[in-house]
Amino acid sequence: MATEPFQRARRPEQKEQRREAILAAAAELARRDGVRAVSLSDIARAVGIHKSALLRYFETREQIFLEVTAREWRDWEGEVTAALGEIAPGDAEAVAATLARSFVSRPLLCDLLPHAALNLERHASIDAVRAYKETSIGAVAAVADALADPLPELDDEARREAVSYIALLAGSMYQIATPPEPLARLYEEEPRLGHFLLDLEGRLTRAATVLIAGLREAPA
Amino acid sequence: MATEPFQRARRPEQKEQRREAILAAAAELARRDGVRAVSLSDIARAVGIHKSALLRYFETREQIFLEVTAREWRDWEGEVTAALGEIAPGDAEAVAATLARSFVSRPLLCDLLPHAALNLERHASIDAVRAYKETSIGAVAAVADALADPLPELDDEARREAVSYIALLAGSMYQIATPPEPLARLYEEEPRLGHFLLDLEGRLTRAATVLIAGLREAPA
Repeated sequence: MATEPFQRARRPEQKEQRREAILAAAAELARRDGVRAVSLSDIARAVGIHKSALLRYFETREQIFLEVTAREWRDWEGEVTAALGEIAPGDAEAVAATLARSFVSRPLLCDLLPHAALNLERHASIDAVRAYKETSIGAVAAVADALADPLPELDDEARREAVSYIALLAGSMYQIATPPEPLARLYEEEPRLGHFLLDLEGRLTRAATVLIAGLREAPA
Repeated sequence: MATEPFQRARRPEQKEQRREAILAAAAELARRDGVRAVSLSDIARAVGIHKSALLRYFETREQIFLEVTAREWRDWEGEVTAALGEIAPGDAEAVAATLARSFVSRPLLCDLLPHAALNLERHASIDAVRAYKETSIGAVAAVADALADPLPELDDEARREAVSYIALLAGSMYQIATPPEPLARLYEEEPRLGHFLLDLEGRLTRAATVLIAGLREAPA
């Protein structure tokens, strides 16, 4: 991936390029192998630099992935606010499908979400965590705002609840819906054990439908 | 914790005792330090046996915690079915509060839930995973059955959805609601960054209320 392996980046634009290369490599490896499988050494190798050089850019593996997660949140925000803008007022079915698809179409974001709370936030500097929280909360708030036109009957707080609950479910459902090979075989042999989550998009759309219906019925 | 450290258990009842001691030590350490922090060596040390002796009982750290999780599911099932049996038909508010409290009062179960999908199921034998899945699915099904009297308007599938969604939210909310020390300080300084989950029981009760209202409104 790197064009100048092992060469030290000195000028600001070179440093910025290297930083971008590190984040891109981490994202690519995580897409291929799953977040849990990617180590700092894997990332350094993919970028073509020494681990010690990588540590001049990021303090920990977790800090790299926290920044990848922040970028995924921002991309998700841009994409889903645009899609919600196309929906006619009151079409809750389209909103549920759009929100569910916005996560299912971003497996890297779904994979990262539980890792963020479980691991990433616990092994990054407080400034890195603060920046991450600002981004994730900002993305949720922006998407909640974009629900005002299609779901005018929900108030600010209810819209924010909708987005937050669906994001939490997307992260936890994704882990169960993407089992490792031996577990996938077990689910094939005994569909009863896995059926609840075999269709992630269908299941998340259904959960989003239920949540939106409930938020209409049960004001806070 | 062990009364005969480093002594080999030979008779079946001794083996059973040792197995129980291992599970109890793992649960106790996880309650104190969090699941993520407990290693196989920590557990062996707490039981007073060598790590190699421990591996005669369980293949991996993850298999130990998967069995701890199964036990937590069974205890949860017994407790919550009893509590649901006391609720008058139609009292959805009491159902939401009872389900939320059933998780919040079991921090070990809440902590274990995301670890189960993220790690534990991936590092245990297929037979251990099958047994775990039977237990967790059985517990969800039993609690869904126990919702038939208090929530007669929900069908089988909707009751199962209610329990499953709330369990998924409990696991993912718990991780965010129990931040490590530096993150907790950040939330104190900037409540805006953490406020959504500062009150875990209130938040989970609210989510359960919304889900039950939605399941009443939106039949599958």
